[in-house]
Amino acid sequence: MPAVQITMAEGRTQDQKRAVARRVTDVLVEELGVSPDAITVYIYEIGRDHIAKSGVFLSDTA
Amino acid sequence: MPAVQITMAEGRTQDQKRAVARRVTDVLVEELGVSPDAITVYIYEIGRDHIAKSGVFLSDTA
Amino acid sequence: MPAVQITMAEGRTQDQKRAVARRVTDVLVEELGVSPDAITVYIYEIGRDHIAKSGVFLSDTA
Amino acid sequence: MPAVQITMAEGRTQDQKRAVARRVTDVLVEELGVSPDAITVYIYEIGRDHIAKSGVFLSDTA
Amino acid sequence: MPAVQITMAEGRTQDQKRAVARRVTDVLVEELGVSPDAITVYIYEIGRDHIAKSGVFLSDTA
Amino acid sequence: MPAVQITMAEGRTQDQKRAVARRVTDVLVEELGVSPDAITVYIYEIGRDHIAKSGVFLSDTA
Repeated sequence: MPAVQITMAEGRTQDQKRAVARRVTDVLVEELGVSPDAITVYIYEIGRDHIAKSGVFLSDTA
Repeated sequence: MPAVQITMAEGRTQDQKRAVARRVTDVLVEELGVSPDAITVYIYEIGRDHIAKSGVFLSDTA
Repeated sequence: MPAVQITMAEGRTQDQKRAVARRVTDVLVEELGVSPDAITVYIYEIGRDHIAKSGVFLSDTA
Repeated sequence: MPAVQITMAEGRTQDQKRAVARRVTDVLVEELGVSPDAITVYIYEIGRDHIAKSGVFLSDTA
Repeated sequence: MPAVQITMAEGRTQDQKRAVARRVTDVLVEELGVSPDAITVYIYEIGRDHIAKSGVFLSDTA
Repeated sequence: MPAVQITMAEGRTQDQKRAVARRVTDVLVEELGVSPDAITVYIYEIGRDHIAKSGVFLSDTA
């Protein structure tokens, strides 16, 4: 039943996201001993103008 | 104060989502004894190309 | 793939939570036309001293 | 390491969101004694037709 | 309807958390023009042995 | 800034969780090209009696 929610800034290619979903699933299968179909990975992409580090949006620091 | 966050793949009609929000709220009112206005339902729709089961995006398995 | 995350204050019985999980799943099956085993419900119980409405924790307003 | 996830209805200006990110970060720095760069604020904007109070979407109550 | 979910490491006093909830609510009221009772703040405290920065749990870097 | 929230049932060893945090971070570094210190992994452990698949808690199906 592990659910993995990955929040990341927009801008990655679909292949990058495919690789992340596949490899993160593999890690949980290998380390937690759960079957692949028990794992769901959700990728939430939000704009760089909606993620703030030290109080400043990434889009304002580029 | 219950908050319900429902993450689902894009593609449902607004009426489907209305029914989900209304009926899920009813369930919590009836089972938890809270008043309707204490309940907030948030629906997060993300693309089928951002939800992976067994490490593979739904959009790649259709 | 719908994931339902319900954040609620501590204090409910296990039977109340069972009824919520079962009936919320039924709503999604009936309204979204997904199969039951595609739905996962996660219940996050947090203390009334960790949920604030209008800036005041529920435990401080009881 | 505090992560702040703010889910709000669409419709605010970028300056409003800037002020929220900056001032919420300041609150955590001042009250929790963490350094600014340890804090990340994520703003999730979702449609008024995806947030339901008392089982009814905000967009249906305007 | 803004919901604020703050995930932080265990170890803060209840007064620190009270101040965070109150002041974060004030920020949203002042900057977004919503009424206080529309805002819910949820504080999720998790162990330092469950938060990893650069792949290492905080509890392993103290 | 990627944040990874992994919700899993209680019962894993701390070493299993260490391996998950380390290896998931590695995947994001390698696939997304972000630096390790930009990545935070949060592990939320909840009871098997709070995770329902097909409307039934894991603890009721063991």
